[in-house]
Amino acid sequence: MSRLRVESFTISLDGFGAGPNQDIDNPLGVGGASLHRWAASTRTFQRMVFGTEGGSAEGIDEEFAARGFRNIGAWILGRNMFGPIRGPWPDESWRGWWGKNPVYHVPVFVLTNHARPPLVMEGGTTFHFVTDGIAAALARAREAAGGKDVRLGGGVNVIQQYLRHRLVDEMHLAISPVLLGSGERLLEGIDLPALGYACTGHVASPLATHVVITRP
Amino acid sequence: MSRLRVESFTISLDGFGAGPNQDIDNPLGVGGASLHRWAASTRTFQRMVFGTEGGSAEGIDEEFAARGFRNIGAWILGRNMFGPIRGPWPDESWRGWWGKNPVYHVPVFVLTNHARPPLVMEGGTTFHFVTDGIAAALARAREAAGGKDVRLGGGVNVIQQYLRHRLVDEMHLAISPVLLGSGERLLEGIDLPALGYACTGHVASPLATHVVITRP
Repeated sequence: MSRLRVESFTISLDGFGAGPNQDIDNPLGVGGASLHRWAASTRTFQRMVFGTEGGSAEGIDEEFAARGFRNIGAWILGRNMFGPIRGPWPDESWRGWWGKNPVYHVPVFVLTNHARPPLVMEGGTTFHFVTDGIAAALARAREAAGGKDVRLGGGVNVIQQYLRHRLVDEMHLAISPVLLGSGERLLEGIDLPALGYACTGHVASPLATHVVITRP
Repeated sequence: MSRLRVESFTISLDGFGAGPNQDIDNPLGVGGASLHRWAASTRTFQRMVFGTEGGSAEGIDEEFAARGFRNIGAWILGRNMFGPIRGPWPDESWRGWWGKNPVYHVPVFVLTNHARPPLVMEGGTTFHFVTDGIAAALARAREAAGGKDVRLGGGVNVIQQYLRHRLVDEMHLAISPVLLGSGERLLEGIDLPALGYACTGHVASPLATHVVITRP
């Protein structure tokens, strides 16, 4: 069964998944980069996200980073994760944060209210723009994933929508020892136990506490 | 300099310091007890809080539990931590949750809107009922502490008031791998970085992630 998984989603001690004042210079919001120190320390993120060789090939952080890319056949992203543009697309020049050969290498379904033709990138990534809601995006992603799992990349608002509909099967959160103070709080208004979720895994590295939340 | 310290204050993964529906049978709210598994595992809590011999005499959890009782000359508690009664005191029969010989063994200043004479207990604990606000309570606790620190016991609302006035010098939080879903969220509406606080310590045990928050 193809599962919908949130992986390596990092929140601050005060519960924020992104810092305040996101813009093109601060795609994670102000202070958001400090959230991701654990991820930046891993070989998986260095290789998959930054395109560099480096980082640790073992340890708790690397294990969680690596599992996030295993058995993934498609991604779902909120439109704000695809780019900083709000409202209708002014043209088709914005092609994502990730250059010509994005990190995904599989079909990526971008939730948006504004239609746009699919965008075929190098390396196996195609961005599909889905305007008919989260359930439709999940159905299309499942079909594209060909039996593999679907990874839900975020942001906060998109994860909240899928959680409220009990559509997330497993969620790995990393809690970084950082205070952001404001921004988007991942679990604001989300009663996870009432939705049937529980914490089923918990382990910490010096850089983050990793928790796994599932519907047992 | 006598500091105001929050120690061993435990929150859930979703940020709640107590579960919903507090009453006399559930002083920590429903599900609140599962928050405190790390503390219950320690010799310090077994001895100081439960009056039993047991628990671990070493390890990260025990170290944090023990430091919370070191160099403490007085406590401040919110009225709801002292007991389940709301509004005016019907009589003086309620003498706290802790029996004849409470765990404090020093003066304890209870914040309330309803005056009541001091309550002298066995073992050095005297409950003083303070009706003129958080600053007055802190001044009286500092005086009573005789150069030692003052420990701020909680609950959530009281800690929030002291944080907003930048009066907390150090706060040790334990984050338990538990979801509560609702209740009182410790950092709701509190922008700690804007108040000058930062995370200055971080270490985890299998039962909890311990963080220390200070104004550096």
